[in-house]
Amino acid sequence: MAAIITIGREFGSGGREFARLLSERLGIPAHDRSVIAEIAQRTSFAEEYVRGIVERTPQRPVLPFLPGGQGVFFDGHAEMPAESVYRAQREAVLFLADHSPCIIVGRCADYILRERATLRVFLYADLESRVRRCLERQPEGENHSEREMRQLVQRMDRERARYYDFYTGTTWGDRANYDLCLNTSSLSLASAVDIVEAALKGRGA
Amino acid sequence: MAAIITIGREFGSGGREFARLLSERLGIPAHDRSVIAEIAQRTSFAEEYVRGIVERTPQRPVLPFLPGGQGVFFDGHAEMPAESVYRAQREAVLFLADHSPCIIVGRCADYILRERATLRVFLYADLESRVRRCLERQPEGENHSEREMRQLVQRMDRERARYYDFYTGTTWGDRANYDLCLNTSSLSLASAVDIVEAALKGRGA
Repeated sequence: MAAIITIGREFGSGGREFARLLSERLGIPAHDRSVIAEIAQRTSFAEEYVRGIVERTPQRPVLPFLPGGQGVFFDGHAEMPAESVYRAQREAVLFLADHSPCIIVGRCADYILRERATLRVFLYADLESRVRRCLERQPEGENHSEREMRQLVQRMDRERARYYDFYTGTTWGDRANYDLCLNTSSLSLASAVDIVEAALKGRGA
Repeated sequence: MAAIITIGREFGSGGREFARLLSERLGIPAHDRSVIAEIAQRTSFAEEYVRGIVERTPQRPVLPFLPGGQGVFFDGHAEMPAESVYRAQREAVLFLADHSPCIIVGRCADYILRERATLRVFLYADLESRVRRCLERQPEGENHSEREMRQLVQRMDRERARYYDFYTGTTWGDRANYDLCLNTSSLSLASAVDIVEAALKGRGA
Protein backbone atom coordinates (compact mmCIF):
# COMPACT_ATOMS: atom_id res chain seq x y z
CA MET A 1 0.00 0.00 0.00
CA ALA A 2 1.55 3.28 -1.09
CA ALA A 3 0.95 5.95 1.50
CA ILE A 4 2.41 8.64 3.67
CA ILE A 5 1.50 8.15 7.31
CA THR A 6 2.32 10.76 9.91
CA ILE A 7 2.39 9.84 13.58
CA GLY A 8 1.94 12.32 16.39
CA ARG A 9 2.12 10.87 19.89
CA GLU A 10 2.13 11.60 23.56
CA PHE A 11 5.45 10.75 25.16
CA GLY A 12 5.49 7.11 26.29
CA SER A 13 2.43 6.08 24.27
CA GLY A 14 4.51 3.69 22.17
CA GLY A 15 5.03 5.81 19.05
CA ARG A 16 8.47 4.50 18.18
CA GLU A 17 7.53 0.82 18.57
CA PHE A 18 4.28 1.42 16.71
CA ALA A 19 6.19 3.00 13.81
CA ARG A 20 8.50 -0.01 13.68
CA LEU A 21 5.60 -2.51 13.67
CA LEU A 22 3.73 -0.50 11.05
CA SER A 23 6.86 -0.24 8.92
CA GLU A 24 7.25 -4.04 9.01
CA ARG A 25 3.59 -4.62 8.19
CA LEU A 26 3.41 -2.17 5.29
CA GLY A 27 6.93 -2.69 3.99
CA ILE A 28 7.71 1.03 3.92
CA PRO A 29 10.36 2.91 5.90
CA ALA A 30 9.67 4.75 9.14
CA HIS A 31 11.58 8.01 9.55
CA ASP A 32 12.53 9.20 12.95
CA ARG A 33 16.21 9.89 13.60
CA SER A 34 16.95 9.39 9.92
CA VAL A 35 14.98 12.56 9.25
CA ILE A 36 17.32 14.36 11.58
CA ALA A 37 20.37 12.88 9.87
CA GLU A 38 18.96 14.15 6.58
CA ILE A 39 18.55 17.60 8.08
CA ALA A 40 22.04 17.52 9.48
CA GLN A 41 23.49 16.74 6.04
CA ARG A 42 21.58 19.57 4.47
CA THR A 43 22.38 22.19 7.04
CA SER A 44 25.88 21.20 8.07
CA PHE A 45 24.86 21.30 11.72
CA ALA A 46 26.25 18.47 13.75
CA GLU A 47 23.62 15.71 13.95
CA GLU A 48 23.97 15.57 17.71
CA TYR A 49 23.05 19.23 18.03
CA VAL A 50 20.11 18.94 15.66
CA ARG A 51 18.85 15.89 17.54
CA GLY A 52 18.93 17.94 20.72
CA ILE A 53 17.02 20.86 19.32
CA VAL A 54 14.38 19.01 17.33
CA GLU A 55 10.99 18.97 19.07
CA ARG A 56 11.96 21.74 21.44
CA THR A 57 10.78 25.28 21.12
CA PRO A 58 12.18 28.71 21.36
CA GLN A 59 11.07 30.18 24.69
CA ARG A 60 9.45 33.00 22.77
CA PRO A 61 8.81 33.88 19.16
CA VAL A 62 11.90 34.49 17.13
CA LEU A 63 11.59 38.09 16.00
CA PRO A 64 13.36 38.67 12.72
CA PHE A 65 13.85 42.35 13.51
CA LEU A 66 15.80 41.73 16.71
CA PRO A 67 19.31 43.14 16.75
CA GLY A 68 21.70 40.32 15.99
CA GLY A 69 19.46 38.74 13.37
CA GLN A 70 18.89 35.18 14.52
CA GLY A 71 16.78 35.94 17.57
CA VAL A 72 16.57 34.46 21.02
CA PHE A 73 16.63 30.75 21.70
CA PHE A 74 15.89 28.34 24.50
CA ASP A 75 17.93 26.26 26.78
CA GLY A 76 21.23 28.07 26.77
CA HIS A 77 21.55 27.79 22.98
CA ALA A 78 21.53 31.56 22.55
CA GLU A 79 22.45 32.55 19.00
CA MET A 80 21.65 29.07 17.63
CA PRO A 81 19.33 29.27 14.62
CA ALA A 82 16.34 27.17 15.85
CA GLU A 83 14.13 28.52 13.07
CA SER A 84 16.70 27.45 10.50
CA VAL A 85 16.65 23.98 12.01
CA TYR A 86 12.86 23.92 11.68
CA ARG A 87 13.08 25.07 8.07
CA ALA A 88 15.67 22.44 7.21
CA GLN A 89 13.59 19.81 8.98
CA ARG A 90 10.53 20.91 7.01
CA GLU A 91 12.52 20.53 3.79
CA ALA A 92 13.60 17.06 4.85
CA VAL A 93 10.01 16.00 5.59
CA LEU A 94 8.85 17.28 2.19
CA PHE A 95 11.80 15.56 0.50
CA LEU A 96 11.05 12.23 2.20
CA ALA A 97 7.34 12.44 1.40
CA ASP A 98 8.15 13.16 -2.26
CA HIS A 99 10.66 10.36 -2.41
CA SER A 100 8.62 7.28 -1.44
CA PRO A 101 5.74 6.01 0.70
CA CYS A 102 6.84 6.23 4.33
CA ILE A 103 5.96 6.75 7.97
CA ILE A 104 7.11 9.98 9.61
CA VAL A 105 7.11 10.21 13.39
CA GLY A 106 6.71 13.64 14.99
CA ARG A 107 8.41 16.69 13.46
CA CYS A 108 5.06 18.44 12.77
CA ALA A 109 4.87 16.25 9.66
CA ASP A 110 1.05 16.19 9.73
CA TYR A 111 1.10 19.99 9.46
CA ILE A 112 3.99 20.24 7.00
CA LEU A 113 2.25 17.73 4.67
CA ARG A 114 -1.28 19.10 5.24
CA GLU A 115 -1.87 19.74 1.53
CA ARG A 116 -1.17 16.10 0.64
CA ALA A 117 -3.17 12.90 0.99
CA THR A 118 -1.52 11.62 4.15
CA LEU A 119 -3.03 9.52 6.91
CA ARG A 120 -2.56 11.45 10.13
CA VAL A 121 -2.47 9.29 13.24
CA PHE A 122 -2.19 10.45 16.85
CA LEU A 123 -1.33 8.00 19.64
CA TYR A 124 -2.23 8.73 23.24
CA ALA A 125 -2.55 6.86 26.51
CA ASP A 126 -3.28 7.62 30.14
CA LEU A 127 -0.39 8.99 32.16
CA GLU A 128 0.07 5.91 34.35
CA SER A 129 0.44 3.48 31.45
CA ARG A 130 2.89 5.87 29.76
CA VAL A 131 5.01 6.12 32.91
CA ARG A 132 4.93 2.32 33.24
CA ARG A 133 6.00 1.86 29.62
CA CYS A 134 8.90 4.29 30.02
CA LEU A 135 10.07 2.65 33.27
CA GLU A 136 10.03 -0.77 31.62
CA ARG A 137 12.09 0.52 28.71
CA GLN A 138 14.73 2.52 30.56
CA PRO A 139 18.11 2.08 28.88
CA GLU A 140 20.74 0.31 30.94
CA GLY A 141 22.44 2.72 33.29
CA GLU A 142 19.36 4.92 33.71
CA ASN A 143 17.42 4.39 36.86
CA HIS A 144 14.60 6.94 37.13
CA SER A 145 12.13 6.57 39.98
CA GLU A 146 8.43 6.45 39.16
CA ARG A 147 8.09 10.04 40.35
CA GLU A 148 10.99 11.24 38.21
CA MET A 149 9.62 9.40 35.19
CA ARG A 150 6.17 10.94 35.64
CA GLN A 151 7.78 14.39 35.68
CA LEU A 152 9.87 13.55 32.62
CA VAL A 153 6.83 12.32 30.67
CA GLN A 154 4.88 15.46 31.50
CA ARG A 155 7.82 17.71 30.65
CA MET A 156 8.36 15.99 27.29
CA ASP A 157 4.67 16.45 26.44
CA ARG A 158 4.87 20.12 27.34
CA GLU A 159 7.93 20.51 25.10
CA ARG A 160 6.27 18.70 22.21
CA ALA A 161 3.17 20.84 22.60
CA ARG A 162 5.19 24.07 22.75
CA TYR A 163 7.17 23.13 19.67
CA TYR A 164 4.15 22.00 17.66
CA ASP A 165 1.95 24.92 18.65
CA PHE A 166 4.72 27.41 17.94
CA TYR A 167 5.46 26.21 14.41
CA THR A 168 1.96 25.21 13.29
CA GLY A 169 -0.20 27.87 14.95
CA THR A 170 -2.59 25.08 15.97
CA THR A 171 -2.82 22.85 19.04
CA TRP A 172 -0.78 19.69 19.54
CA GLY A 173 -3.05 16.69 20.05
CA ASP A 174 -6.20 18.55 18.90
CA ARG A 175 -8.23 15.82 17.20
CA ALA A 176 -9.08 18.17 14.34
CA ASN A 177 -5.47 17.83 13.14
CA TYR A 178 -5.66 14.03 12.77
CA ASP A 179 -7.65 11.42 10.86
CA LEU A 180 -7.62 8.98 13.73
CA CYS A 181 -6.56 9.07 17.35
CA LEU A 182 -5.78 5.78 19.08
CA ASN A 183 -5.64 5.12 22.81
CA THR A 184 -2.76 2.73 23.45
CA SER A 185 -3.80 2.24 27.09
CA SER A 186 -6.63 0.10 25.81
CA LEU A 187 -5.60 -0.88 22.28
CA SER A 188 -2.48 -3.01 21.75
CA LEU A 189 0.11 -1.67 19.32
CA ALA A 190 -0.55 -4.71 17.10
CA SER A 191 -4.22 -3.75 17.06
CA ALA A 192 -3.30 -0.14 16.26
CA VAL A 193 -1.36 -1.44 13.24
CA ASP A 194 -4.44 -3.41 12.10
CA ILE A 195 -6.53 -0.28 12.49
CA VAL A 196 -4.20 1.88 10.41
CA GLU A 197 -4.06 -0.83 7.75
CA ALA A 198 -7.88 -0.85 7.65
CA ALA A 199 -7.91 2.95 7.34
CA LEU A 200 -5.43 2.83 4.44
CA LYS A 201 -7.50 0.19 2.68
CA GLY A 202 -10.57 2.42 2.96
CA ARG A 203 -8.70 5.20 1.21
CA GLY A 204 -7.70 2.94 -1.63
CA ALA A 205 -4.10 3.64 -0.68
CA MET B 1 -17.96 -10.82 17.19
CA ALA B 2 -19.50 -10.36 20.63
CA ALA B 3 -18.93 -6.85 21.86
CA ILE B 4 -20.43 -3.74 23.32
CA ILE B 5 -19.55 -0.67 21.28
CA THR B 6 -20.40 2.81 22.46
CA ILE B 7 -20.48 5.69 20.02
CA GLY B 8 -20.07 9.31 21.00
CA ARG B 9 -20.27 11.80 18.16
CA GLU B 10 -20.29 15.42 17.18
CA PHE B 11 -23.62 16.45 15.70
CA GLY B 12 -23.62 15.86 11.95
CA SER B 13 -20.55 13.62 11.94
CA GLY B 14 -22.59 10.65 10.71
CA GLY B 15 -23.12 8.78 13.98
CA ARG B 16 -26.55 7.40 13.15
CA GLU B 17 -25.58 6.13 9.70
CA PHE B 18 -22.33 4.76 11.07
CA ALA B 19 -24.22 2.84 13.77
CA ARG B 20 -26.50 1.35 11.10
CA LEU B 21 -23.58 0.27 8.90
CA LEU B 22 -21.71 -1.18 11.86
CA SER B 23 -24.84 -3.01 13.01
CA GLU B 24 -25.19 -4.60 9.57
CA ARG B 25 -21.51 -5.56 9.43
CA LEU B 26 -21.35 -7.07 12.92
CA GLY B 27 -24.87 -8.49 12.99
CA ILE B 28 -25.67 -6.93 16.36
CA PRO B 29 -28.36 -4.34 17.16
CA ALA B 30 -27.70 -0.61 17.37
CA HIS B 31 -29.63 1.17 20.10
CA ASP B 32 -30.61 4.75 19.65
CA ARG B 33 -34.30 5.60 19.97
CA SER B 34 -35.00 2.05 21.13
CA VAL B 35 -33.03 2.86 24.28
CA ILE B 36 -35.40 5.72 24.84
CA ALA B 37 -38.42 3.50 24.28
CA GLU B 38 -37.01 1.11 26.85
CA ILE B 39 -36.62 3.96 29.32
CA ALA B 40 -40.14 5.13 28.61
CA GLN B 41 -41.56 1.70 29.40
CA ARG B 42 -39.67 1.56 32.64
CA THR B 43 -40.49 5.01 33.88
CA SER B 44 -44.00 5.47 32.55
CA PHE B 45 -43.01 8.79 31.00
CA ALA B 46 -44.40 9.33 27.55
CA GLU B 47 -41.75 8.34 25.00
CA GLU B 48 -42.14 11.64 23.24
CA TYR B 49 -41.27 13.56 26.36
CA VAL B 50 -38.29 11.37 27.15
CA ARG B 51 -37.03 11.73 23.59
CA GLY B 52 -37.17 15.47 24.02
CA ILE B 53 -35.25 15.53 27.26
CA VAL B 54 -32.61 12.94 26.46
CA GLU B 55 -29.25 14.54 25.68
CA ARG B 56 -30.27 17.86 27.09
CA THR B 57 -29.09 19.16 30.41
CA PRO B 58 -30.47 20.92 33.39
CA GLN B 59 -29.41 24.57 33.17
CA ARG B 60 -27.68 24.19 36.51
CA PRO B 61 -26.93 21.37 38.91
CA VAL B 62 -29.93 19.73 40.46
CA LEU B 63 -29.46 20.25 44.16
CA PRO B 64 -31.11 17.50 46.18
CA PHE B 65 -31.61 19.83 49.13
CA LEU B 66 -33.63 22.38 47.16
CA PRO B 67 -37.10 22.97 48.51
CA GLY B 68 -39.50 21.02 46.36
CA GLY B 69 -37.18 18.02 45.96
CA GLN B 70 -36.77 17.55 42.24
CA GLY B 71 -34.81 20.70 41.52
CA VAL B 72 -34.68 23.10 38.63
CA PHE B 73 -34.83 22.03 35.01
CA PHE B 74 -34.11 23.42 31.60
CA ASP B 75 -36.18 24.61 28.77
CA GLY B 76 -39.46 25.39 30.44
CA HIS B 77 -39.77 21.87 31.84
CA ALA B 78 -39.72 23.15 35.42
CA GLU B 79 -40.64 20.43 37.89
CA MET B 80 -39.86 17.67 35.37
CA PRO B 81 -37.52 15.12 36.91
CA ALA B 82 -34.54 15.24 34.50
CA GLU B 83 -32.35 13.35 36.93
CA SER B 84 -34.91 10.54 37.10
CA VAL B 85 -34.84 10.38 33.31
CA TYR B 86 -31.05 10.09 33.43
CA ARG B 87 -31.25 7.35 36.06
CA ALA B 88 -33.83 5.40 34.06
CA GLN B 89 -31.74 5.87 30.94
CA ARG B 90 -28.67 4.61 32.81
CA GLU B 91 -30.63 1.53 33.88
CA ALA B 92 -31.70 0.93 30.29
CA VAL B 93 -28.09 1.17 29.03
CA LEU B 94 -26.93 -1.32 31.69
CA PHE B 95 -29.85 -3.61 30.87
CA LEU B 96 -29.10 -3.54 27.15
CA ALA B 97 -25.37 -4.14 27.70
CA ASP B 98 -26.15 -7.11 29.96
CA HIS B 99 -28.65 -8.51 27.52
CA SER B 100 -26.60 -8.97 24.33
CA PRO B 101 -23.72 -7.58 22.26
CA CYS B 102 -24.84 -4.25 20.85
CA ILE B 103 -23.99 -0.75 19.71
CA ILE B 104 -25.18 2.14 21.87
CA VAL B 105 -25.20 5.64 20.42
CA GLY B 106 -24.86 8.59 22.78
CA ARG B 107 -26.54 8.55 26.19
CA CYS B 108 -23.20 8.74 28.09
CA ALA B 109 -22.99 4.98 27.48
CA ASP B 110 -19.17 5.05 27.43
CA TYR B 111 -19.25 6.49 30.95
CA ILE B 112 -22.12 4.35 32.24
CA LEU B 113 -20.34 1.19 31.04
CA ARG B 114 -16.83 2.32 32.03
CA GLU B 115 -16.22 -0.73 34.25
CA ARG B 116 -16.90 -3.12 31.37
CA ALA B 117 -14.88 -4.20 28.36
CA THR B 118 -16.53 -1.95 25.81
CA LEU B 119 -15.01 -0.40 22.71
CA ARG B 120 -15.52 3.35 23.01
CA VAL B 121 -15.62 5.19 19.70
CA PHE B 122 -15.92 8.94 19.14
CA LEU B 123 -16.78 10.35 15.71
CA TYR B 124 -15.90 13.91 14.79
CA ALA B 125 -15.59 16.02 11.67
CA ASP B 126 -14.87 19.60 10.74
CA LEU B 127 -17.80 22.00 11.07
CA GLU B 128 -18.22 22.60 7.33
CA SER B 129 -18.57 18.94 6.43
CA ARG B 130 -21.04 18.45 9.29
CA VAL B 131 -23.17 21.37 8.13
CA ARG B 132 -23.06 19.98 4.58
CA ARG B 133 -24.12 16.51 5.76
CA CYS B 134 -27.04 17.94 7.73
CA LEU B 135 -28.19 20.12 4.82
CA GLU B 136 -28.12 17.10 2.48
CA ARG B 137 -30.18 15.05 4.94
CA GLN B 138 -32.84 17.59 5.89
CA PRO B 139 -36.21 15.85 6.24
CA GLU B 140 -38.83 16.88 3.73
CA GLY B 141 -40.57 20.04 4.85
CA GLU B 142 -37.52 21.43 6.64
CA ASN B 143 -35.58 24.03 4.79
CA HIS B 144 -32.79 25.43 6.94
CA SER B 145 -30.33 27.83 5.36
CA GLU B 146 -26.64 27.08 5.65
CA ARG B 147 -26.32 29.74 8.32
CA GLU B 148 -29.20 28.32 10.35
CA MET B 149 -27.82 24.82 10.03
CA ARG B 150 -24.39 25.94 11.24
CA GLN B 151 -26.03 27.47 14.31
CA LEU B 152 -28.09 24.33 14.89
CA VAL B 153 -25.03 22.07 14.66
CA GLN B 154 -23.12 24.22 17.12
CA ARG B 155 -26.06 24.41 19.50
CA MET B 156 -26.57 20.63 19.44
CA ASP B 157 -22.88 20.12 20.25
CA ARG B 158 -23.13 22.56 23.15
CA GLU B 159 -26.16 20.69 24.49
CA ARG B 160 -24.48 17.31 24.15
CA ALA B 161 -21.38 18.62 25.90
CA ARG B 162 -23.43 20.18 28.72
CA TYR B 163 -25.38 16.98 29.22
CA TYR B 164 -22.34 14.70 29.12
CA ASP B 165 -20.16 16.90 31.32
CA PHE B 166 -22.96 17.33 33.85
CA TYR B 167 -23.66 13.63 34.31
CA THR B 168 -20.16 12.21 33.93
CA GLY B 169 -18.03 14.90 35.60
CA THR B 170 -15.62 14.61 32.65
CA THR B 171 -15.41 16.38 29.30
CA TRP B 172 -17.42 15.40 26.25
CA GLY B 173 -15.12 14.56 23.34
CA ASP B 174 -11.99 14.38 25.52
CA ARG B 175 -9.93 11.65 23.82
CA ALA B 176 -9.07 10.14 27.22
CA ASN B 177 -12.69 8.90 27.42
CA TYR B 178 -12.45 6.90 24.18
CA ASP B 179 -10.44 4.05 22.69
CA LEU B 180 -10.46 5.54 19.23
CA CYS B 181 -11.55 8.82 17.70
CA LEU B 182 -12.31 8.91 13.99
CA ASN B 183 -12.45 11.95 11.75
CA THR B 184 -15.33 11.45 9.32
CA SER B 185 -14.31 14.51 7.28
CA SER B 186 -11.45 12.43 5.93
CA LEU B 187 -12.45 8.82 6.60
CA SER B 188 -15.54 7.39 4.91
CA LEU B 189 -18.13 5.78 7.16
CA ALA B 190 -17.44 2.45 5.44
CA SER B 191 -13.78 2.87 6.32
CA ALA B 192 -14.73 3.73 9.91
CA VAL B 193 -16.64 0.44 10.06
CA ASP B 194 -13.53 -1.44 8.82
CA ILE B 195 -11.47 0.32 11.47
CA VAL B 196 -13.82 -0.61 14.31
CA GLU B 197 -13.91 -4.19 13.07
CA ALA B 198 -10.09 -4.27 13.10
CA ALA B 199 -10.10 -2.85 16.66
CA LEU B 200 -12.55 -5.54 17.81
CA LYS B 201 -10.44 -8.27 16.23
CA GLY B 202 -7.40 -7.00 18.13
CA ARG B 203 -9.28 -7.38 21.41
CA GLY B 204 -10.26 -10.92 20.62
CA ALA B 205 -13.89 -9.80 20.80
